[in-house]
Amino acid sequence: MNGTLYGIGLGPGDPELMTLKAARLIAAAKVVAYPALECGNSFARSIAADLIAEGTDEIRIPVPMTVERAPAQAAYDAGAAQIAERLAAGDDVVVLCEGDPFFYGSFMYLFARLSDRFDCEIVPGVTSITTVAARAQRPLVARNERLTVLPGPLDEAELRSRIEGAESVAIMKVGRHLAKIRAVIADLGLTDKATYVERASLPEEVVLPLSEAPEKAPYFSMILLAKGTDPWL
Amino acid sequence: MNGTLYGIGLGPGDPELMTLKAARLIAAAKVVAYPALECGNSFARSIAADLIAEGTDEIRIPVPMTVERAPAQAAYDAGAAQIAERLAAGDDVVVLCEGDPFFYGSFMYLFARLSDRFDCEIVPGVTSITTVAARAQRPLVARNERLTVLPGPLDEAELRSRIEGAESVAIMKVGRHLAKIRAVIADLGLTDKATYVERASLPEEVVLPLSEAPEKAPYFSMILLAKGTDPWL
Repeated sequence: MNGTLYGIGLGPGDPELMTLKAARLIAAAKVVAYPALECGNSFARSIAADLIAEGTDEIRIPVPMTVERAPAQAAYDAGAAQIAERLAAGDDVVVLCEGDPFFYGSFMYLFARLSDRFDCEIVPGVTSITTVAARAQRPLVARNERLTVLPGPLDEAELRSRIEGAESVAIMKVGRHLAKIRAVIADLGLTDKATYVERASLPEEVVLPLSEAPEKAPYFSMILLAKGTDPWL
Repeated sequence: MNGTLYGIGLGPGDPELMTLKAARLIAAAKVVAYPALECGNSFARSIAADLIAEGTDEIRIPVPMTVERAPAQAAYDAGAAQIAERLAAGDDVVVLCEGDPFFYGSFMYLFARLSDRFDCEIVPGVTSITTVAARAQRPLVARNERLTVLPGPLDEAELRSRIEGAESVAIMKVGRHLAKIRAVIADLGLTDKATYVERASLPEEVVLPLSEAPEKAPYFSMILLAKGTDPWL
């Protein structure tokens, strides 16, 4: 009997924003796996650290942060092979995922490699989007409003056209794209509706009007445009 | 000293998909408040039921399901007044919210009425969107893909134009709009990319290809179009 592959969403960073189910599965896991930087640090593991029992086997997947895809592909191939070995031996494997596994999560690359051969269960997690809205105290969408989620790396023209037709907008992965995104928003006259948030829910969290955002943003930063025009009840 | 107003996301329905923080705050609450149907049933309360300690004061806010807004407005006015009384007396009040408080949540109507006078803390929850993706085993968005969230009540032309330009799409609040949405999706030639999910994470959950969806959908149903074309790693 093969084991089951669990993709576990850990939420945005505060360990208390993990679900009860995630906490239960991690605490009971015989094998956990997680992506890590090449230096060995893993944000996902740090969120779950207090729950990983002594003696749990750990499969660390060091993912090179390169523009070319081949090195990362090779890393996920190797990680998937290690996981497959444990699954085939009958062990469940719990993969730790920042945020939600299917929302811009690297778990998808393991899922794509393993889900045709093994049973998978995905445990959803709190996303950074609703966390950012909560921390900024800005409601995201109500009634019949639309929400658009855009990755910051999109080019200027694409960002502009997607924001122009939108109601509420969350721009993810701001990082080194901050200046470009800020210029687009300013050009659309929306700067005073925009909130900048970095590392939402973590002790080093920053929440600022976009006009007061720093010049440099970390990868885990977001810009929220709550443009909702539908009047509230 | 006034108490603090907590808006607590409970997740999609499975009590285990609540966060550790939500569970802690509910278990410790002196006063909980929640929206309910006029018959008295409350989905939010049912998710949290096992955590509400005996002797906890409960503020039930019966919300009439009418097309006109005035009756619901009056209900939230009355609920907010009851909550304000407890906050002014120095008690914290924990408002139970299905899903996430700021993501199509009725908590926003209480927040709009109370946040200028009282401290608020919003605890984000797992949304139905990532839950549906998890249960359907369909990754939502990867890399530089965009996500569009649309409410089912939008009219046909609006739905069509928003789906046409999109990558991944989640259509919320399908309910009695199912036939209209299905027609738009068929017309765009996307039926075989669409998944229908009702009551995600609950025991009575249904996950089906849209082509096999029933004729009648409950309010808590969703259609997922995972159109992502960006090749995976």
